[in-house]
Amino acid sequence: MERVDVAIIGCGPAGLSAAINAKWRGKEVVLFGTKLCSPALHKAHQIDNYLGFPAMAGEDLRQRFLEHAESMGIKPELQTVSAAYPMSGYFELQLRNDNLQVTTLVLATGVAVARPLPGEEKYIGRGISYCATCDGNFYRGKVVAVISEDAHGEEEALFLASLAEKVYYLPLYAPVGRLPENVEIVDDKPAEFSGGDRLEKLELKSGKSLDIDGCFVLKEQLPLTQLVPGLELADRHIKVDRRMATNIPGLFAAGDVAGRPYQLAKAVAEGQLAALSAVSYIDSQKK
Amino acid sequence: MERVDVAIIGCGPAGLSAAINAKWRGKEVVLFGTKLCSPALHKAHQIDNYLGFPAMAGEDLRQRFLEHAESMGIKPELQTVSAAYPMSGYFELQLRNDNLQVTTLVLATGVAVARPLPGEEKYIGRGISYCATCDGNFYRGKVVAVISEDAHGEEEALFLASLAEKVYYLPLYAPVGRLPENVEIVDDKPAEFSGGDRLEKLELKSGKSLDIDGCFVLKEQLPLTQLVPGLELADRHIKVDRRMATNIPGLFAAGDVAGRPYQLAKAVAEGQLAALSAVSYIDSQKK
Repeated sequence: MERVDVAIIGCGPAGLSAAINAKWRGKEVVLFGTKLCSPALHKAHQIDNYLGFPAMAGEDLRQRFLEHAESMGIKPELQTVSAAYPMSGYFELQLRNDNLQVTTLVLATGVAVARPLPGEEKYIGRGISYCATCDGNFYRGKVVAVISEDAHGEEEALFLASLAEKVYYLPLYAPVGRLPENVEIVDDKPAEFSGGDRLEKLELKSGKSLDIDGCFVLKEQLPLTQLVPGLELADRHIKVDRRMATNIPGLFAAGDVAGRPYQLAKAVAEGQLAALSAVSYIDSQKK
Repeated sequence: MERVDVAIIGCGPAGLSAAINAKWRGKEVVLFGTKLCSPALHKAHQIDNYLGFPAMAGEDLRQRFLEHAESMGIKPELQTVSAAYPMSGYFELQLRNDNLQVTTLVLATGVAVARPLPGEEKYIGRGISYCATCDGNFYRGKVVAVISEDAHGEEEALFLASLAEKVYYLPLYAPVGRLPENVEIVDDKPAEFSGGDRLEKLELKSGKSLDIDGCFVLKEQLPLTQLVPGLELADRHIKVDRRMATNIPGLFAAGDVAGRPYQLAKAVAEGQLAALSAVSYIDSQKK
């Protein structure tokens, strides 16, 4: 399998800055992102402290950032990376329908707004999964729930419906397309996961609960330690040094996910530093 | 004496970013700088990695940066700070003809291009000085040399000529204005300081030498440890943590002086971080 030099997760200011700098240094770059790339920037009425460009609307900056990247041939791929496994000298990225090998990885995912549900972390790997393609086969003939932040989840539910006896589908958005008969759309909100050693129930906000064997939680923001096993955190952010290196060789982090203050200029600089560090890492591996 | 909240030395990207952020947070700011503020930016043909604004001439960015600061009422004062003494809860800055008390200090001086001359560091305080106003009186009736990077040095030579028996003036620039009779303009370059326990000679590039009691070295970039006594360095840069704090409480550093890589976005971000840290420090002192 071909290996990409630098994969970047997140297309906010940190991720885009990492992308343009890595590309500028002649590396092959793949950038994974979400639709808006930076909801915070999109919503910012006016930004006055990006040196040289006072009184800019956040949305104007967001578009200029994307255009800058596009002018260098970089376009975010709207795809969720459900896991990144550190291997010997590279990372194996788990995508929806594919795997990808990359030499270095920059995490620029921003800060997770949503916290995990009660019980979610307890049952990871014991009923809770973040990737239907990867783990669907474990639930042949069983009952599963799917909690999804967006319509991509319907594809996953469709796939799971072909394996499982019954699928409960909890959309955290509207509307929902047509799904097979064994998929029940649940008009309720998830509240808590419970069970014994393995996951058994999904408790709902209404007080009802669903008896399930497994649950696929499909969201843009994965818990960081779930995304990269073994990643060291510090106070809910990724622990980095001044070169944006994490505890895992070849893995770098930048922007809000790497710590406060949550500031644009910091994100841009850290994206650049992470990219330069990734480039050095790649070059040192080749020696 | 009134105290200024935040003094910043250096008006390149790091210093200007510190200034706009500190001002934005409602602090009184004084910014000391040199004529071009950032010679490196001034000379840069094109900068492509300041996110959002590709293909900018360095000089265009430099002017936009200064205009941004000016739009907030910040203008660099063209004055050299010859020393900053950490006192209890504030800093005493030594200016050409005045002292200034400041609560916090941000060093954003860039990287010194010129290294100290051989022997310079050995004779600091034993014949070598960086401030005529401060130390001129020690040389009444004696012979001194003045090495100056710019025409400000002529004022200093004039002052010293009123005290010393003889002044050798070594301009590292051209041209030179009129100076008193006991000032001899030396058309040569300084090479090395020598002597016994105290400074005795200034050796010149031509092979000649000057017998002197003292030498005033007037340059924009002072050795960092001379500028702030007790400042901890790491590998010729100022040692800082991720919040840009140095080993001295209330003292912060940003930009190239705080370490590699020498990059614009890093300087802008670090200036901001240093300012935010200075603001936090001031607010915590008031409690």
